[in-house]
Amino acid sequence: MKYKVSFLVISMLLIATLHAQKIMGFTDANATRQRDWEKQYDAQLNATNQDTWMQFLTSHPHHVGSPQDKANAEYMAGLFRSWGYQTEIDEYYVLFPTPKFRSLELLGPKPYKAKLEEPTLKEDKTSGQKSEQLPSYNAYSADGDVTAELVFVNRGIPADYEELERMGISVQGKIVIARYGGSWRGIKPKVAFEHGAIGCIIYSDPQDDGYGQGDVYPEGAFRPKDGVQRGSVMDMPVYPGDPLTPGVGATKDAKRLDRSQAVTIMKIPVIPISYEDALPLLQSLGGPVVPAAWRGGLPITYHAGPGKEKVHLKLEFNWDQKTLYDVIAKLPGTELPDEWIIRGNHHDGWVNGAADPISGMVSELDEAKAIAELVKKGLKLKRTLVYCAWDGEEPALLGSTEWSEDHQEELKKKAVFYLNTDGNSRGFVGASGSHTLEPFFNEVANDVIDPQTGVTIKERKYASDFVNGDKTARTKLIGNKNIKLGALGAGSDWSGFLQFLGIASMDIGFGGEGRGGEYHSIYDSYDHFVKFKDPGFQYGVTLSKTAGRLMMRMANADVLPFDFNSFYKTVADYVTELKTLVDNTRSETEQENKMIQDKLYDLAKDPTKNYQSPKPKDIVPYLNFSDLENSMVQLKNSAEEFQKQYGNATQLPVDKQKELNEILYKAERSLINDKGLPRRSWYKHQIYAPGYYTGYGVKTLPGIREAIEQRNWKEAQENIGIVSKTMDVYTVQVQQATGVIMKKPF
Amino acid sequence: MKYKVSFLVISMLLIATLHAQKIMGFTDANATRQRDWEKQYDAQLNATNQDTWMQFLTSHPHHVGSPQDKANAEYMAGLFRSWGYQTEIDEYYVLFPTPKFRSLELLGPKPYKAKLEEPTLKEDKTSGQKSEQLPSYNAYSADGDVTAELVFVNRGIPADYEELERMGISVQGKIVIARYGGSWRGIKPKVAFEHGAIGCIIYSDPQDDGYGQGDVYPEGAFRPKDGVQRGSVMDMPVYPGDPLTPGVGATKDAKRLDRSQAVTIMKIPVIPISYEDALPLLQSLGGPVVPAAWRGGLPITYHAGPGKEKVHLKLEFNWDQKTLYDVIAKLPGTELPDEWIIRGNHHDGWVNGAADPISGMVSELDEAKAIAELVKKGLKLKRTLVYCAWDGEEPALLGSTEWSEDHQEELKKKAVFYLNTDGNSRGFVGASGSHTLEPFFNEVANDVIDPQTGVTIKERKYASDFVNGDKTARTKLIGNKNIKLGALGAGSDWSGFLQFLGIASMDIGFGGEGRGGEYHSIYDSYDHFVKFKDPGFQYGVTLSKTAGRLMMRMANADVLPFDFNSFYKTVADYVTELKTLVDNTRSETEQENKMIQDKLYDLAKDPTKNYQSPKPKDIVPYLNFSDLENSMVQLKNSAEEFQKQYGNATQLPVDKQKELNEILYKAERSLINDKGLPRRSWYKHQIYAPGYYTGYGVKTLPGIREAIEQRNWKEAQENIGIVSKTMDVYTVQVQQATGVIMKKPF
Repeated sequence: MKYKVSFLVISMLLIATLHAQKIMGFTDANATRQRDWEKQYDAQLNATNQDTWMQFLTSHPHHVGSPQDKANAEYMAGLFRSWGYQTEIDEYYVLFPTPKFRSLELLGPKPYKAKLEEPTLKEDKTSGQKSEQLPSYNAYSADGDVTAELVFVNRGIPADYEELERMGISVQGKIVIARYGGSWRGIKPKVAFEHGAIGCIIYSDPQDDGYGQGDVYPEGAFRPKDGVQRGSVMDMPVYPGDPLTPGVGATKDAKRLDRSQAVTIMKIPVIPISYEDALPLLQSLGGPVVPAAWRGGLPITYHAGPGKEKVHLKLEFNWDQKTLYDVIAKLPGTELPDEWIIRGNHHDGWVNGAADPISGMVSELDEAKAIAELVKKGLKLKRTLVYCAWDGEEPALLGSTEWSEDHQEELKKKAVFYLNTDGNSRGFVGASGSHTLEPFFNEVANDVIDPQTGVTIKERKYASDFVNGDKTARTKLIGNKNIKLGALGAGSDWSGFLQFLGIASMDIGFGGEGRGGEYHSIYDSYDHFVKFKDPGFQYGVTLSKTAGRLMMRMANADVLPFDFNSFYKTVADYVTELKTLVDNTRSETEQENKMIQDKLYDLAKDPTKNYQSPKPKDIVPYLNFSDLENSMVQLKNSAEEFQKQYGNATQLPVDKQKELNEILYKAERSLINDKGLPRRSWYKHQIYAPGYYTGYGVKTLPGIREAIEQRNWKEAQENIGIVSKTMDVYTVQVQQATGVIMKKPF
Repeated sequence: MKYKVSFLVISMLLIATLHAQKIMGFTDANATRQRDWEKQYDAQLNATNQDTWMQFLTSHPHHVGSPQDKANAEYMAGLFRSWGYQTEIDEYYVLFPTPKFRSLELLGPKPYKAKLEEPTLKEDKTSGQKSEQLPSYNAYSADGDVTAELVFVNRGIPADYEELERMGISVQGKIVIARYGGSWRGIKPKVAFEHGAIGCIIYSDPQDDGYGQGDVYPEGAFRPKDGVQRGSVMDMPVYPGDPLTPGVGATKDAKRLDRSQAVTIMKIPVIPISYEDALPLLQSLGGPVVPAAWRGGLPITYHAGPGKEKVHLKLEFNWDQKTLYDVIAKLPGTELPDEWIIRGNHHDGWVNGAADPISGMVSELDEAKAIAELVKKGLKLKRTLVYCAWDGEEPALLGSTEWSEDHQEELKKKAVFYLNTDGNSRGFVGASGSHTLEPFFNEVANDVIDPQTGVTIKERKYASDFVNGDKTARTKLIGNKNIKLGALGAGSDWSGFLQFLGIASMDIGFGGEGRGGEYHSIYDSYDHFVKFKDPGFQYGVTLSKTAGRLMMRMANADVLPFDFNSFYKTVADYVTELKTLVDNTRSETEQENKMIQDKLYDLAKDPTKNYQSPKPKDIVPYLNFSDLENSMVQLKNSAEEFQKQYGNATQLPVDKQKELNEILYKAERSLINDKGLPRRSWYKHQIYAPGYYTGYGVKTLPGIREAIEQRNWKEAQENIGIVSKTMDVYTVQVQQATGVIMKKPF
């Protein structure tokens, strides 16, 4: 009996070990070889190199058009070439405005002229490079010279304007002041303009990334009183990239719009300011005290306005064309050179840009170098690796968008996968992307060790999610360590690949323990980074381990590791969410209308205050989800059938594998609808898009979801039909993939 | 057909009108008469009188021992007498410490000496009465002279110390600084002492009642930077009243404890300070940044400490005996003079005390005057009204406690009902009390009109609760306009009546639209009140209308309006809450212990920070609730049977009604257990008590609930038995009451 038990235990251990050695889409033999290479790969990674490269790349401001921007591109191209990559620098020519004149002042008896200046700190050696720095501004703001009363609009999102309306406050003809956060910054002036405002000020409230979060720089990591968040306010939820060349590469001879026709350029002047500059402006406001949720961390009573005194904002920009330098470095595949595994991180920064973006860039460089070393030692990668260092991400995802537009036909054919990073910090792995890739990512996350705790990054992420999760989150997590991929909205360089072209994409990075308030300021520097973000580049190396595995496994898989079941389950959840959203909107509307009818708002309000009860809303019809639900059943059945067969696919003959793989990676293309989303045809993906009114905030099944949110029931119903048809086409790909496997002669 | 419909409609209207004229416990004829008198009563109320009285009563500081305190008592006694009340001033002699020496300083290279001073404001005419004001202090703090490092303990409640322990911070031998709020103030030094602290500073954070809530005084209503909240820190959850005479009246010759034996006097020195004085202390702190929920509204990063520099706190008090002046004014009942309907509000203030307590006091005076006028016009009240103006509420409910202890035998026999107010403001009615009184209160709330909206105060309260309620609250409110009475913990003068003697009690007031930060500061003045609290005393009059109806209906009811069903339902909800609490505690303990065992806390924490994972807790046993549940079934059946018979009781002969009424009002006495609650025998009520570790915060079924919260399972089980027996005795009262009605010869 004892013997039998031991035997059983040993057998189980062996099976477990063997199982642990498996890699999705690899034959057992290839998986073993792959793991051997991965061990060698880890040994090649070098934190010191990452540190050295960061010192060079952040040594001077390196925004679009700066000498260091070009120098960095050439430096990296030189590195890639020295490692054996076929490297070129692709140039594009884009509209990139920079400040010519900036002035903001409070008028009246206690005038205040905003400093608009981030001081040099002796503790930060690059902070004094004044002549090279871009001053604090919002790129793609309009020129303007406006004088008006000021209104505080909280985050400046549509819900805030509903609240202002209830307070009886209009921003028509006013300048608004909004605090950063709660949406992508470009939403704030866009919504302000839609409500009639003539200027927009955006400030960093100390509650969000200043002293309210922790000690400020240089003592701590958070935003000091003069720190300003630069950033683009282009209307990227309509289209990213050069505003003059939507949909095509901004090559020298590309056909360009006149600037006046470019809808993504903001219509009113916009300026970002520090909380020291914001204080006298906010203090000058009269009107009602704001709702509790609108209060920030300044030592004042926040009022909505309008201000007792007017504000004068004057902005002029140089509307120049600048050259972008995208570094593109290829390592051709030995068997399947026309299947591309693409990797990107941007290299331009708003100023010295250490955390954003160089921390991710040096991790990518280390990864590329290590792979090249392995190749020299005999590693053969079936598919082509394409390592990219994008320029102009900060202003508008310029470099990646123009490149993906310029190479769209080739990419549609060849691109298997796009892996993005954009800066890195210390802590827990975060990952978003196409949900076909969720099991693939989890397999890698289970193989990478967290440098601080010695457990896998997957285990550590689970621990963090569980400990910090609320009751609902914990209930979902019990017995389920799978890392759920987030959905990709906007925010970095995947948009051209995923949302314009339908290339399965991911974005990964570490964070949570290196929080700070340096974002888009002169204080995002090497000195700040090595003190507060990732001292010793331990997580830079861990990111290289993670991303490198994703790249090499994707490049070498016998059968590409796409999982339709994971995709099905995720989309099915989205459909359920939408049905619930409609039902909740309906019952909330009914309740709200009844409350209005019963005069509850009138009775509950303070009669001494000018508070308006809300107006009744149109009732919510029942939408017909049945087409979509039937399509989802088809997808479910097909995905499950494919999953049953997937294990056999590594045994297919090479030509069949090639046929299968092409179906697998092109399946994501069928999620693209050439007409694009309503009112923004550039965004073609039917599952993931940035929110039209949230920006960064992703909207899944965006055609349907945003129509519901905007109470456009006809459009919602139409988009249910469109998504349903999209799912049907996708299901056909899944069925074809299954067919290829089943025809295999055993 | 048309005729018939109209007839039906008219009949229904008539029935509705007749029904509206009914009053619980009154014959129809008596109800009609009562309503006539109530109309005349309303006409007698006079906002100008309330204003005039407030001007006199707040003209000088009127704390215990001050000349104005005695003058106010005599002034009010004079008024009561002039209206025809049999009036006396009952004196008690109590220990009441006042400051002899106060000093608080931060040591080290950047020393700071706290100002401990509220400045005179030209906009506030009594703020400059410096020689008459009690300086800012916490009454019943210990004398002390301590120098130690400082630790910030958030609200200073037990959960905050658990968090500190996880941050690796001990307060042993330290001085703590806590912010006001989150508990009754006396809990803070008590818990600090239990954890080894040697001194305690309490400050008003501007987020709680300063600029974070609204503009500060004198521009707005909220606490200015120098404003300080005075207040008692006596350990009143053990027993209130004179610390030297627990359980007996502090008459001249009462047997007194030595001060060293008085357990309710705080063991360490405690001082309240302004946020201006708190700022340099909090800025001096090192150690970890506090959790997000601990952050206040000061423009700094809040650290837990300990401080880099030490703090020196020195306090000395005059431990004097002072005289209390309770004004007791009686209007003898014409039929049942030995059934007392008692009404109270305190008259002492911390300084000029306009909102707290004079706004409630003048409303009570107006009420007493109006009733007296009606009596002159022929109103006969069956039962005796006892109007009280309590002294010494602020230090420790001194006046009401000593009076109720002194008259305990008489009160046990005669007291039918105690109605308390303690200040008043503008807005929505709030009511707490014995749940037998809930339908009685709702009937009155349905008869009083809100002065701002013209609907009943019940309708307006419903509108506010609904509009401001979350989803759960709204779901409960749909189709249910009943105002749910809160449960009474501590906080004002009902404790002696309800929790020591078992007299059915209520506390009512208006608020929500007169918020401010004047509480217990020199700025709680007439000027502040008429500008921000209840301009024109509209709600002072509305409170008089509400309280006067409660008093007169209770005084004149044929059958007392007690409802056992309402009591049953409320207690049944409490029992369900407790069962859920035990189950949730069990499952949370299991989950937490598993998280600890799985090392999730170890893995989730930032290894660069000194954060301790929690320790496993003992598992939660299953408690046996069956005795209590069986007792509740008996009560349910008996209460429903009584309710069926209640309508017949007004037809009983007078002697039977008297017998019934005595059972009704003495039923609350059977909720008293002479042994009292564990570790605090003064508190005898088995349903309602102040929380041992929350103070104001009520604990319902306290013997069971606090044992569960403190994980004392044996004590919890014992108390289930005690409450079960209490319920059985109560049920016998209900059955006897039913018996009296059913024996009625029809």
